[in-house]
Amino acid sequence: MARKKTTAKKTATKPRSSRRKGDAGAKIQELARSVADTAFRRQEPHVDIPIRALSNVSFNQKTRYIEMGDKTQRRSFFNYGQAKRFMQTLLVASKCKDLIDEDKTASIRQIYYLAKHTIRGTSEKTFDDQGESDPVLEDLEVAVEALREELHIFASSKGAMIGELVFVDSGDTIDATRLGTGGYAIPGIVEPEVIQFRKCRAEFVLHVEKDTVWRRFVEDRFWEQHRCILTHGGGQPPRGVRRLLHRLHHELKLPVYVLLDNDPWGYYIYSVIKQGSINLAFESARMAIPEARYLGVSAFDYERFGLSDDVRIDLDANDIKRAKQILEYPWFQGKRPWIREIRMLLANGFKMEVEAMCSKSLSFVTEEYVPHKLKHDKQWLD
Amino acid sequence: MARKKTTAKKTATKPRSSRRKGDAGAKIQELARSVADTAFRRQEPHVDIPIRALSNVSFNQKTRYIEMGDKTQRRSFFNYGQAKRFMQTLLVASKCKDLIDEDKTASIRQIYYLAKHTIRGTSEKTFDDQGESDPVLEDLEVAVEALREELHIFASSKGAMIGELVFVDSGDTIDATRLGTGGYAIPGIVEPEVIQFRKCRAEFVLHVEKDTVWRRFVEDRFWEQHRCILTHGGGQPPRGVRRLLHRLHHELKLPVYVLLDNDPWGYYIYSVIKQGSINLAFESARMAIPEARYLGVSAFDYERFGLSDDVRIDLDANDIKRAKQILEYPWFQGKRPWIREIRMLLANGFKMEVEAMCSKSLSFVTEEYVPHKLKHDKQWLD
Repeated sequence: MARKKTTAKKTATKPRSSRRKGDAGAKIQELARSVADTAFRRQEPHVDIPIRALSNVSFNQKTRYIEMGDKTQRRSFFNYGQAKRFMQTLLVASKCKDLIDEDKTASIRQIYYLAKHTIRGTSEKTFDDQGESDPVLEDLEVAVEALREELHIFASSKGAMIGELVFVDSGDTIDATRLGTGGYAIPGIVEPEVIQFRKCRAEFVLHVEKDTVWRRFVEDRFWEQHRCILTHGGGQPPRGVRRLLHRLHHELKLPVYVLLDNDPWGYYIYSVIKQGSINLAFESARMAIPEARYLGVSAFDYERFGLSDDVRIDLDANDIKRAKQILEYPWFQGKRPWIREIRMLLANGFKMEVEAMCSKSLSFVTEEYVPHKLKHDKQWLD
Repeated sequence: MARKKTTAKKTATKPRSSRRKGDAGAKIQELARSVADTAFRRQEPHVDIPIRALSNVSFNQKTRYIEMGDKTQRRSFFNYGQAKRFMQTLLVASKCKDLIDEDKTASIRQIYYLAKHTIRGTSEKTFDDQGESDPVLEDLEVAVEALREELHIFASSKGAMIGELVFVDSGDTIDATRLGTGGYAIPGIVEPEVIQFRKCRAEFVLHVEKDTVWRRFVEDRFWEQHRCILTHGGGQPPRGVRRLLHRLHHELKLPVYVLLDNDPWGYYIYSVIKQGSINLAFESARMAIPEARYLGVSAFDYERFGLSDDVRIDLDANDIKRAKQILEYPWFQGKRPWIREIRMLLANGFKMEVEAMCSKSLSFVTEEYVPHKLKHDKQWLD
C-alpha cells in the first residue's frame, strides 16, 4: 500500500482536499438524502438539474462573464424516458462521494469505468460508453454547484509554467524560477487545497497558446527580464490551466495577458479564458477572467509591424464562418476595438500564427513584439 | 534584450549546447563547403541524401533495432526536378547553422517561417507550406548524421516526470521527488548539454501512456514505495520523452517498463520505444531501447486478473487490420510470446485500456496489477 509508506510530512500535505471534504461531499449527501426522503414518503424520487444550454445562459454585463440562468429540468424515477438518466446521476454521485471520502481523484474516463457495471439480474449496463457518463457528470456539477475538481474529477493536463513564483504543491515547495527549460507541468487540479502561492515577484502573467512559442520565451528568459510568469495550455487550455490563471489573477492580483494566433480559434480561446464557456457557464465565476487582455496577434499587426507576406495564411470558408459567429457573441457587442479587430481579420483575408513572427527574426517576438505591446497600452484588446 | 539581463550564473548555464556546437555545426559547414568546392571547380553542385524508406531500412537482429541502410539519393542543382529541393536543403541547413551559432532553438514550424521568403526578382516562395520543409529537415538530419535536437530543432513537448531522480536542467537542480502533483514537464530537447543526471535512487522507470493514468500513480506515490521514476508521454511519446527514457536506460542502467493500452496502438507505441520507427531509422541507436519491457495491458490479463466484461471494447475493422500488420513486423518474428499476445488480442475480439483497470477499484492498477506484474517476471513481454 503506497499510501502507508508515505512519510508523516507527506501525509500531512497530501495532494488533495481534506479541508473542503465537507463542501461537495455534504452536498452530494444532501442530494441523496432528499431522494431517499421522497421515496420513504412514498412519493416519486427526482433530481432537479439546472439546464445547460444557450437558452439558459446569459452574459452578465456587470460581472462580464457568461452566467447560467435558473431554469431547471426534472429527472424523475418513474418516468420511462428519464429513469436511466436518474439512476446514472445518482450512481456517478455516489462514485464521486467515494472519491471524496477516500481522498483520491479520477479522470472522467476513470469515473466512467468506476460507474459502469451490469445491473443485477439483467444484461443491461449502467453506461454503454463515456458519451453517456460525461453529461451526467456535468449534470451533477450544476446540481450540487461544485466544480468538477471539488468532486475530485480531473481533466487531462497539458500546460506548463515557469517564472517568478514560489508555490507549494502538496507540501512540496517549488520555485518556478528554477525549473530549467522544462518547467512545471500544470496538473488537472490546482485548487487551494493542493496548491498554495508563497512568494510572487511577478508583475503579470503571460499566457501563450502553444508550447513551442512558450519555449521561445523560456529560452530567452523573458520571465526574468520582465518579471512575469509564463504559462501555456497546449492549444485550448485545459481546466487546470484556466483555473490556475484565474487564481493567479484574483489572488495575486496579476494582470493576465494572452498571446494567441490571429485566427477565429485564437479569438475563441481568448473568449473562453475571459468570459467562460457556454456549456460550463455555471462555473464562470471561478474560471473566467473578465480582465484578461488579448495581447496579440492582432489583424492590425501585419501593417503595424511591417510583416512580410510570408506570414499570411489564407482564411478558409470555415474561418470566415467562425469569425462572423464570434462577431455576434453578446460579449463582443458594443466593444468597438473587438469589432474592428474581427472585421480587420475578415478584410485581410488571412490569418497569422504567433510562430510566424520569427519570419522577422527568431527572437523578434520576445525582444520586440511583446515588449512593444506591453509598453503601448493601446495595443492590446480587452 | 532579455539575454543581457540574465545573471552571470544563469548565462553560464544557458539551456543550450555550446559545448557541442562543434559537431552538428561543423558537419553543416562541411556540407556547404563541399557544395561550394564543386561549384568553384565548375562541376554540378549536389547533395547526397540517405534514402528514408522501407526499402532502405532493416531490423538488425544483433542490436535489435531498426537501422538505415546505405542507399543514397543525389539532389543536383542543374536537375530541373531537383533544383528546388536542393536549394531548400541548403536553406534549411543555413538556418540550422544560425541557430547553432546563436545558441537558440526552434520548432519545426518556426524553422519553416525562418526559411520561408520570396526569391528575389520572382514571386516564387522558398517554401509554400510546412509540408515541404519537414521532409527537407529530415533529409538534413540524415545527410549530416545529426539528431534533430543537435540541429537545435525541438519537437512539441507533452510528457511529464516525477520520481527518485535529482537532475540538472540548464543549471537548475531539480529534485523530481519534490514536484507535487504536477511534476516536471519534459522539454523537447533533453540532450546531455541541457540535462545532466545527478543522483538516482530509482531502481526502474515506469512509463505510462497517458497523463490520466500517470496521475493515479503519482497520487498513490507509487514512485516512493517502489523506488522508481514515473513518466508519461501524453499518448505516443514525443521525441524528448523517448530520448529521456533512452538516456535513463543507458546512462543510469535503469530497466524501462511501459504500461500501455491493450490495443494495436499500444503495441505500436511499444514498438517505437523499443525498436525505433521506420521513418527515423537513422537515429534508432540514440532513441531506441531494445530492452524495454511491455508490462501491460496484455490480452491475457482479462482472464489472469478476472476482469469483468465492463472493460471490453470491441475491436473494429481497423484494429484488426493494424494488429495483423504488427504481427508481420520483422522484429516480432520468432518472438513467440508476442505472437501469442497479438493472436490473443484477435481471439478476444476486444481491446482494454489501462484506465479500465479501475473497474476493479481505483487503485487496483497501482496496488495490485503493476506490483504483481513486476514480481512475476513471466508477466511482461520483451
